[in-house]
Amino acid sequence: MMDPIAVIATKRDGAELSTVQIREMVAAYTAGDVAPEQMSSLLMAIVLNGMGRREIADWTAAMIDSGVRLDLSGLRTVDKHSTGGVGDKITLPLTPLVASYGLAVPQLSGRGLGHTGGTLDKLESIPGWRADLGVDEMRAQLHGVGAVVCAATADLAPADRKLYALRDVTGTVACIPLIASSIMSKKIAEGTGALVLDVKVGSGAFMKSYDEARELAQTMVELGDDAGMDTRALLTDMSTPLGRTAGNAVEVVESLEVLAGGGPSDVVELTLALAREMLDAGGLDDVDPAENLRNGRAMDTWRAMVVAQGGDPDADLPVPGHTHVLTAGRSGVLSSLDALAVGEAARLLGAGRSRPGEPVSYAAGVTWHAGVGDDVRAGAPLFTLSFDDEARLNAAAARLADAALIGEAAEPAGSRVLGRVGPTAGTSWAAEHPRP
Amino acid sequence: MMDPIAVIATKRDGAELSTVQIREMVAAYTAGDVAPEQMSSLLMAIVLNGMGRREIADWTAAMIDSGVRLDLSGLRTVDKHSTGGVGDKITLPLTPLVASYGLAVPQLSGRGLGHTGGTLDKLESIPGWRADLGVDEMRAQLHGVGAVVCAATADLAPADRKLYALRDVTGTVACIPLIASSIMSKKIAEGTGALVLDVKVGSGAFMKSYDEARELAQTMVELGDDAGMDTRALLTDMSTPLGRTAGNAVEVVESLEVLAGGGPSDVVELTLALAREMLDAGGLDDVDPAENLRNGRAMDTWRAMVVAQGGDPDADLPVPGHTHVLTAGRSGVLSSLDALAVGEAARLLGAGRSRPGEPVSYAAGVTWHAGVGDDVRAGAPLFTLSFDDEARLNAAAARLADAALIGEAAEPAGSRVLGRVGPTAGTSWAAEHPRP
Repeated sequence: MMDPIAVIATKRDGAELSTVQIREMVAAYTAGDVAPEQMSSLLMAIVLNGMGRREIADWTAAMIDSGVRLDLSGLRTVDKHSTGGVGDKITLPLTPLVASYGLAVPQLSGRGLGHTGGTLDKLESIPGWRADLGVDEMRAQLHGVGAVVCAATADLAPADRKLYALRDVTGTVACIPLIASSIMSKKIAEGTGALVLDVKVGSGAFMKSYDEARELAQTMVELGDDAGMDTRALLTDMSTPLGRTAGNAVEVVESLEVLAGGGPSDVVELTLALAREMLDAGGLDDVDPAENLRNGRAMDTWRAMVVAQGGDPDADLPVPGHTHVLTAGRSGVLSSLDALAVGEAARLLGAGRSRPGEPVSYAAGVTWHAGVGDDVRAGAPLFTLSFDDEARLNAAAARLADAALIGEAAEPAGSRVLGRVGPTAGTSWAAEHPRP
Repeated sequence: MMDPIAVIATKRDGAELSTVQIREMVAAYTAGDVAPEQMSSLLMAIVLNGMGRREIADWTAAMIDSGVRLDLSGLRTVDKHSTGGVGDKITLPLTPLVASYGLAVPQLSGRGLGHTGGTLDKLESIPGWRADLGVDEMRAQLHGVGAVVCAATADLAPADRKLYALRDVTGTVACIPLIASSIMSKKIAEGTGALVLDVKVGSGAFMKSYDEARELAQTMVELGDDAGMDTRALLTDMSTPLGRTAGNAVEVVESLEVLAGGGPSDVVELTLALAREMLDAGGLDDVDPAENLRNGRAMDTWRAMVVAQGGDPDADLPVPGHTHVLTAGRSGVLSSLDALAVGEAARLLGAGRSRPGEPVSYAAGVTWHAGVGDDVRAGAPLFTLSFDDEARLNAAAARLADAALIGEAAEPAGSRVLGRVGPTAGTSWAAEHPRP
């Protein structure tokens, strides 16, 4: 039997953990044989002393082995994962768009703990839609519709779920080896054949610097490659929020605009860039995904996906009990918009959670009426705040007070795509898209 | 209300914890409002990122404030603390020796978790002797006899007790700021006017290198000075075990030899060196402590101390059910004796504990029949192992198989005292006793 204190001491003293140490420690923690205070001590030692590539691969394998692996053979599967950002509704148009070309997209998601609700919360604002599918239901929908967005079942990498809850309260979230193994253990266990990662960079993202994001992307692509999964990553800008809305129902509406061939240009650009990667990874390197946005096929797949999960694609979405408009204090050009402030305002309005299990308000959210580089006029609406609970307005409005800077001019908004990693370890096209 | 995750993140990111952060975190942990997994994560961050002098002082103060402070005013008190080593029975002759000169020595001890039992376990091998005294009893004995060795009450720095138990299972023991604050919080709360520290260095001690031991000593002396307590430290050699015995009753017997004016020369040397420091700290810089060993006054105080705590100084000590002799495999000079191996052998025989609360065998222990530099003859007794439980013999004998090296010659045994720190911060006499 492994001695947990000896394992902790190994990493504390800066040495590498052995494969056996990692496997036994993760298994024993999942089984309840290693105490939370022992695992959190090890996690902090990992945060501060790091893990090498072999250790990260072992840690990932240990988390996969804590649960079941889905069998999605017989399908051409390609999945996408985003590290999360403010206004990131890309999964909603992207999943049916890629599936509309005949690929199977198994989007197994967790519940959001971020500023706004997670992808499941956004979709749950559609009356009747349900996130909890059995494995057979999910597989059937992948065969029939191609697109599925549903809750990851509890038996997929349960060690990761337990470890993430511990990291969340012990200051051990911010660690590339632990973030990479958490994401990749779930995706490998899910059984997807290929994976495209959207790694966000900037003030509204978890990774504040390009170099950190690059390292995270590289680490995840290597883990995917090692697992025999075609994996590549885009590094994308999250210094300003994506699109024009942050919330749940408001983001569904914006996604429907994209599926209808319209929508904010940055959401469209990122959806198409990720769709091209996914199609390429799925063996379709000669199609233009813009086509199925224009001709309505992506929208058809969206409707089929919603219906298959019990939702009514024509039903009215929840409307807020109250709205409040914040106007521009001066005329000029919107020179910056703070993604973090916008995200926190949406959470304060009720769109997201402060603690796990908290209910979210589907109608709550923030809409901004100008993007960076747009002209604004003194007195014109700048933000619309939607909410059900009046008591939530003041804190959210205060959070937005300095979120928008209006100046004389602004840098033109660049591409959201800053760089690319993969699919083969050591190969990178990031240099083609230098940091702006 | 403090956010524990923010406190953890502060230290994780290499910054200093504020006074308020330290006080609130320690208080909340002691009260059960901060979870063990949060505190252990912070402890590991402290192990790896350290604490500065102000933080260590704040951490110490927070632990003192978690309980009561004893009032020993009206007494000239001087205490001694040893960081622990194999065969370290010095408290037993030292306490009555110093008290025999009219000083009050309040030796409040914890239960040992080391190779051999702690000081209380050793004394409990005396029939009738009890370690648990009330505060009033203890104070009365200090006034009447001068010497008292008793268990620290639970209300003395309870935060330290709770933190130590957590550190013990989370790989966060080895950390000078945490060791120093743990020791000093108890001694400051105890209310002693002066303190002499015996900081052990070497393979049989917690601090393996002289530099580490020096840093620990300096840190503790500074904490004592800040608290207005005359504090000084001796750095003493623990590369070979002290005296000729490791165990409980066997160490009492060896201590009685010292109190009778005999005993192993290294035990006598260290007892006198620490006694001189304690007497000096108590204002008696002109007495020779060897005097009261010779004239029997120290032994008189020992007997009075044992009687005051219910013990019979004339009673027979526990005898072991079995003894086993290991003989020398060749003739030569004993060139080294591994303190760690001897200590572990004593524990394996039953003299110490593997986990808190375990009973110890008073009669169990190891006696070695030669010291480093002594001639040994092939076939002559090298170790005598004493034990009650026959099943314990094999493992202990195996641990001693390579413990003694017999060669052609040996370095002459040097002084046990390697250096000195204090009593004033910044002043050090360590250079007078360079590392051998």
